[in-house]
Amino acid sequence: MPEVTQLAEFSLIQRIAKRFGELRNQTLVGIGDDCAITQPNSKNLQLITTDLLVEGVHFNRHFTNSRDIGYKAMVANLSDIAAMGGTPLQFLTSIAIPPSFTRKDVDALYEGIMKPAKASGVALIGGDTSSSPKKLFLSLTLIGKVKPSHVIHRTGLQVGDEIFVTGTLGDSNAGLRILKTPPHKHIPRASLTWLSQRHLRPTARLRAGQLLAKHKIATAMIDLSDGLSGDLARICELNSVGATVNITHLPISKALCTYAHYIGKQAYKIALQGGEDYELLFTVRPESLPRIKRWKTQGLLDATHIGTITPKRKGIQIITPAGLLQPMRIKSYDHFQRRQH
Amino acid sequence: MPEVTQLAEFSLIQRIAKRFGELRNQTLVGIGDDCAITQPNSKNLQLITTDLLVEGVHFNRHFTNSRDIGYKAMVANLSDIAAMGGTPLQFLTSIAIPPSFTRKDVDALYEGIMKPAKASGVALIGGDTSSSPKKLFLSLTLIGKVKPSHVIHRTGLQVGDEIFVTGTLGDSNAGLRILKTPPHKHIPRASLTWLSQRHLRPTARLRAGQLLAKHKIATAMIDLSDGLSGDLARICELNSVGATVNITHLPISKALCTYAHYIGKQAYKIALQGGEDYELLFTVRPESLPRIKRWKTQGLLDATHIGTITPKRKGIQIITPAGLLQPMRIKSYDHFQRRQH
Repeated sequence: MPEVTQLAEFSLIQRIAKRFGELRNQTLVGIGDDCAITQPNSKNLQLITTDLLVEGVHFNRHFTNSRDIGYKAMVANLSDIAAMGGTPLQFLTSIAIPPSFTRKDVDALYEGIMKPAKASGVALIGGDTSSSPKKLFLSLTLIGKVKPSHVIHRTGLQVGDEIFVTGTLGDSNAGLRILKTPPHKHIPRASLTWLSQRHLRPTARLRAGQLLAKHKIATAMIDLSDGLSGDLARICELNSVGATVNITHLPISKALCTYAHYIGKQAYKIALQGGEDYELLFTVRPESLPRIKRWKTQGLLDATHIGTITPKRKGIQIITPAGLLQPMRIKSYDHFQRRQH
Repeated sequence: MPEVTQLAEFSLIQRIAKRFGELRNQTLVGIGDDCAITQPNSKNLQLITTDLLVEGVHFNRHFTNSRDIGYKAMVANLSDIAAMGGTPLQFLTSIAIPPSFTRKDVDALYEGIMKPAKASGVALIGGDTSSSPKKLFLSLTLIGKVKPSHVIHRTGLQVGDEIFVTGTLGDSNAGLRILKTPPHKHIPRASLTWLSQRHLRPTARLRAGQLLAKHKIATAMIDLSDGLSGDLARICELNSVGATVNITHLPISKALCTYAHYIGKQAYKIALQGGEDYELLFTVRPESLPRIKRWKTQGLLDATHIGTITPKRKGIQIITPAGLLQPMRIKSYDHFQRRQH
């Protein structure tokens, strides 16, 4: 009998969705997008998403404090609402607390959860709490809303659409490496701190998602939790298309540049393969390029044009710094650990 | 620094609710009832509840198979919707799967979840899945609806109201004892099986809750997850009242009677203190007694009149089989393990 650690290959979520998922009771989108969508009224769609963090899988308490754990759990959920162009409203917590957790730890965890929640106007409305034999488990369920005409799905893009990502890529992954294996004496402290913070305190791109939604300009959108290569492959598969990404166009932070230089690695490789960016990947029709550019200039949207959607037969390719077309190495951050359904 | 195992005394949930809970974004009821309530439209209220099962805390895989774990997780959530008179609609799963879980186990778990879900017309619309270092962790979030005029809260009862419970009490607790310490050679097999099944496969009293809601007859309602004494104490505290329960009126199954006889324990004590009944405790005005009686005769409602709401100063009392008034021993099933917020 195969163990569940092998289940990634069996595509657990797809099996579950196929066998047990259903669209009924005002459900418009079930398993398979960033959020489920229901329609309790005609004015707004309701977005619902849940995100689970498990100690020893998603975080290591040796270098992640309770406040950071809570913070990231909330951002992971907010990011799913952002990826559909929605506005987050309320959330519930489900938490199993190990004996090693003090009262102060619990308070810090909730303070961490509440910080991005409050900044986004989200209210804690309920939950369930339990003791845990050994490990901390934290699952948040977040509810949001979006106008029916504004919602952005993972599907809907076409060949010829231009691919954008918000923010910079790979910082979180570099931050995780730094936190895992200190010290790094030769690397400038400012870079180390910045990258670590991007790992511990990522940003949910709610305003970017809402802007794109409001102007109906994105043909598809997904948030990058598994890394650019993995999530791009996923959205391409869903839409039966290919993609070409120009490596030299990938948005790389100065800190990642510095770090990559010091460890003798190419920054773009970290940007391609790294996970937990929580940036948005979206596509637009070519005629929307001027508008995106204008928003960028006006400081309304921090997004970078990284490539183009191609026919499926071309697969997923990169243009290397030398100008060569090569197949992209698809390496998901961790399929079984962070695959949301 | 106090550890979290001691946090029951600090009333963790109340602290969290006080510090972080908020009523906004169309939220009508937050932490503190069986479900949170939001109002996405004027026609219906939305009920949201989450329930968490942790291996080694809520279930023991030595005598609970994956199907049973899933089944009970869903019933615990459905029961919260029932306790507000609502209709369940959709749910999301958050699950962390340990290496010891096979693919077959995962399928069985979902089959267990889906059985009462399908019977109640509830659709799986999303979730998140992760590996777990060692223990299974399962959190479900269930969404339901109820008409604004039908919703039944934990508060609203008055002195003089009559107290009812659905079904029979204590079976689940007896079933747990049986499963924990087999064999029981002298006790009739039919009783053992029935009680074990009541523990592993409880029933959410959705129809009873909806009937009471529709006819606006219940002044307050709660589902019994922590045991009659604990949950009665909770609802009394919330409403600043006392209660008197007539022990001889407690609904005891034939199987529990038999079991209690064989182990030399009084059945009513198990009924009072046992947890995970998932029956409904509700109160009605005395003038509603004939209607409840009629419904009982017609087979529409399986509920038993067990006592009366009294002024707070009288406390929570029992009338013993000998006709004596005594304070009720309040023993919650397990405060920290199963306190929902």
